[in-house]
Amino acid sequence: MAHVFSTSCSLKVVPGGERPYHAVKALSSRVSVQTLMVPRGSVIWSRTKQRSLSIRATTLTEVPTQSGSNSHQSSNDSTKRQRVMVIGGDGYCGWATALHLSKKGYDVSIVDSLIRRLFDHQLGLNSLTPIASIHDRVRRWKDVTGKDIGLYIGDICDFEFLAEAFKSFEPDAVVHFGEQRSAPYSMIDRSRAIFTQHNNVIGTLNVLFAIKEFREECHLVKLGTMGEYGTPNIDIEEGYITITHNGRTDTLPYPKQASSFYHLSKVHDSHNIAFTCKAWGIRATDLNQGVVYGVRTDETEMHEELRNRFDYDGVFGTALNRFCVQAAVGHPLTVYGKGGQTRGYLDIRDTVQCVELAIANPANPGEFRVFNQFTEQFSVNQLAALVTKAGAKLGIDVQTTTVPNPRVEAEEHYYNAKHTKLIDLGLRPHLLSDSLLDSLLNFAVQFEDRVDKKQIMPSVSWKKIGVKPKTVAA
Amino acid sequence: MAHVFSTSCSLKVVPGGERPYHAVKALSSRVSVQTLMVPRGSVIWSRTKQRSLSIRATTLTEVPTQSGSNSHQSSNDSTKRQRVMVIGGDGYCGWATALHLSKKGYDVSIVDSLIRRLFDHQLGLNSLTPIASIHDRVRRWKDVTGKDIGLYIGDICDFEFLAEAFKSFEPDAVVHFGEQRSAPYSMIDRSRAIFTQHNNVIGTLNVLFAIKEFREECHLVKLGTMGEYGTPNIDIEEGYITITHNGRTDTLPYPKQASSFYHLSKVHDSHNIAFTCKAWGIRATDLNQGVVYGVRTDETEMHEELRNRFDYDGVFGTALNRFCVQAAVGHPLTVYGKGGQTRGYLDIRDTVQCVELAIANPANPGEFRVFNQFTEQFSVNQLAALVTKAGAKLGIDVQTTTVPNPRVEAEEHYYNAKHTKLIDLGLRPHLLSDSLLDSLLNFAVQFEDRVDKKQIMPSVSWKKIGVKPKTVAA
Repeated sequence: MAHVFSTSCSLKVVPGGERPYHAVKALSSRVSVQTLMVPRGSVIWSRTKQRSLSIRATTLTEVPTQSGSNSHQSSNDSTKRQRVMVIGGDGYCGWATALHLSKKGYDVSIVDSLIRRLFDHQLGLNSLTPIASIHDRVRRWKDVTGKDIGLYIGDICDFEFLAEAFKSFEPDAVVHFGEQRSAPYSMIDRSRAIFTQHNNVIGTLNVLFAIKEFREECHLVKLGTMGEYGTPNIDIEEGYITITHNGRTDTLPYPKQASSFYHLSKVHDSHNIAFTCKAWGIRATDLNQGVVYGVRTDETEMHEELRNRFDYDGVFGTALNRFCVQAAVGHPLTVYGKGGQTRGYLDIRDTVQCVELAIANPANPGEFRVFNQFTEQFSVNQLAALVTKAGAKLGIDVQTTTVPNPRVEAEEHYYNAKHTKLIDLGLRPHLLSDSLLDSLLNFAVQFEDRVDKKQIMPSVSWKKIGVKPKTVAA
Repeated sequence: MAHVFSTSCSLKVVPGGERPYHAVKALSSRVSVQTLMVPRGSVIWSRTKQRSLSIRATTLTEVPTQSGSNSHQSSNDSTKRQRVMVIGGDGYCGWATALHLSKKGYDVSIVDSLIRRLFDHQLGLNSLTPIASIHDRVRRWKDVTGKDIGLYIGDICDFEFLAEAFKSFEPDAVVHFGEQRSAPYSMIDRSRAIFTQHNNVIGTLNVLFAIKEFREECHLVKLGTMGEYGTPNIDIEEGYITITHNGRTDTLPYPKQASSFYHLSKVHDSHNIAFTCKAWGIRATDLNQGVVYGVRTDETEMHEELRNRFDYDGVFGTALNRFCVQAAVGHPLTVYGKGGQTRGYLDIRDTVQCVELAIANPANPGEFRVFNQFTEQFSVNQLAALVTKAGAKLGIDVQTTTVPNPRVEAEEHYYNAKHTKLIDLGLRPHLLSDSLLDSLLNFAVQFEDRVDKKQIMPSVSWKKIGVKPKTVAA
């Protein structure tokens, strides 16, 4: 919840040239940040009263234009570049997206509380891949590409912090990955369920208010989930469905049937955003994303300090990534229940492509646009079969085991979800081929020594969640 | 938000005879309540560490059975009576419901933070009717009927408090009115928008967790709103709609299009409750209530200290109640925009009847049942015409004025909402007749001197809401 952060330090690194550091008149008298005009190359730390710590790093001298060319421009051109705020830019999808947009010539700033890293500490988990600190990541990106990525470290549930970030960065688009994104995490115990809904819903409301108040024209690109729809017995459309009923017809929001407190939080977000588009004229795109797999993108490949995180544990690991790690370490693939659960999947290289397409083709003022962001459908059993086959090619004998389903979900069901709108905008999907599976498996083998087998099995039960806080033994 | 209450006193009055005061092992070591077996007639105050104050009042000697007869029974029969917890039992609908259920023989306890009274202080508003304190109300009810109503004063967002209330009262049914229930209030400023969603969504999640943990069989009767559906161009069904699409058919949650942060909070609740019914087997009834009018119920008529509140101001006043007060004081009826806005309406005597019907006919375990709780549909223009006509009968010249619509809503639209399920259970509606309008108008005339005309006009704009906290000048 918000107050988790209320006494912590808030660290902000703002890149850029001669643009003034905008005065922030904080709502509470506890926080006040000075107006500063800083020369290039200087670094200024100002400790604000009681809570936040701001840094303005101005090491950047030249930045590329939005043309995508690598030619460096003078900072006078910076006004021409679209400024994109990536909330949750230190996470799995967020980091890859921030780099991709930066590479493409957008002026990118990351807003992140880094709480995802805290979850790992608290639950005794770790990314399969060693990942650098966000500060080292951003510095390395600058070294490798000459491009700056701004950094605002803080919690978007803290509106004073978010207002500061908006007023100083003045985003043209906000990509909002900044939510607790694990269904099992939201089902650990009451406090994590409440945290998930509070954090996600209130954080998104704050983003909407910040846009309304400070950047009316800013386009919100919000990460939703295909899980909002559940598994209805009819085709899933992209956000809306035209219904004829008793001789009358209307196009209405597609009915939602989410199946965890996390998925529900995204449903709540969708309703809140739709209302503000209508009432305030906010322009928003809701990307109902499928299950993401893969780790490498063109940009994260450029240096080992740019490497992305890769989760394989029972809480944060997505199905295919987890299966690849299981295969690599000789652990049977853990199919939950009957394995007929079918979902949409996509390569992380398509996540970054989709976000870029959404930004480049913004929603109109007042429009609440919904895209289903995935490229292929698989059942869990199909995924297990694909990994088994790919393993055989590499000489790995992959076993599969059925474990009691910790979730409450249909294990055999109809599933046919539309996903044409992003294709229409130009998405060229990376499909899950044998060669990709080979490389994913090989990648998992590369980091085999870092696998903690204790973390592989599901540890969270949808039915057994209780009110007592759960903790992890040593 | 929850922490508003974190340092306040929590007052609890538990009625009843020799049932032991159940030990409460608080989750936090800060709070601990002793196990007490108290003799009849004694009153015990125990100040718990740092925060909560508990009272056990044991003045009750005899209680009626559920048969509805007025004959008093010994307390040994108390185990046979259904225990109903009314959350928000000090409010407009909650107070009338608590009395009605108590009269009908249910063992009733009220859970309320009393924050609705604080809203009045903060916004400079007041009920048209003078209302007694909740403590005087409950004492007067005991004097008049011999019946006890228990009282747990605290915030359901504080789970420790709610857990205590559940463990000591052991409800068979929970009627949940305990939410911020005004659309304009939720649109005053950012902090009230956030408060509304936090308070309503987290409070309801806590109730669901309390039921799961402590009273699995307890039936949740939750107040929703017809406003969850918005104004679609097709008939509104009761909670679900059967859709045939591309040759396949499914019955899905009816699409929601709420039009304020308040209405949205109820949509979020509905989704959360539906999930817990499916995942945990919770039994729940969602009462999507229309706009309530009227003030008198059989029980509130029994003594002036039992009188209900009656809101006519621009924030908490519902349309018809506000029109009657306007007519009584010679203020033109304020029609927002074109006045074609059509909604479902019901008499408060039907609210209490509907809740009783829902409790007497509980949902099955795992069932998420939705009833549309209203009896008639009117447009705002129709209401104004009815009040004008009734005024003429009483010699009042009623004028109508159009004011710019402070809301964002369709002012001319199709509206046809089903409402047969409560009728099928036995609801006998009190329809809005001329005689009722006469009595409502006469009632408003009776309290004319208490009307604060400054509060009548709309003061909250859906489009102008901002991030700065709004306050009220003297």
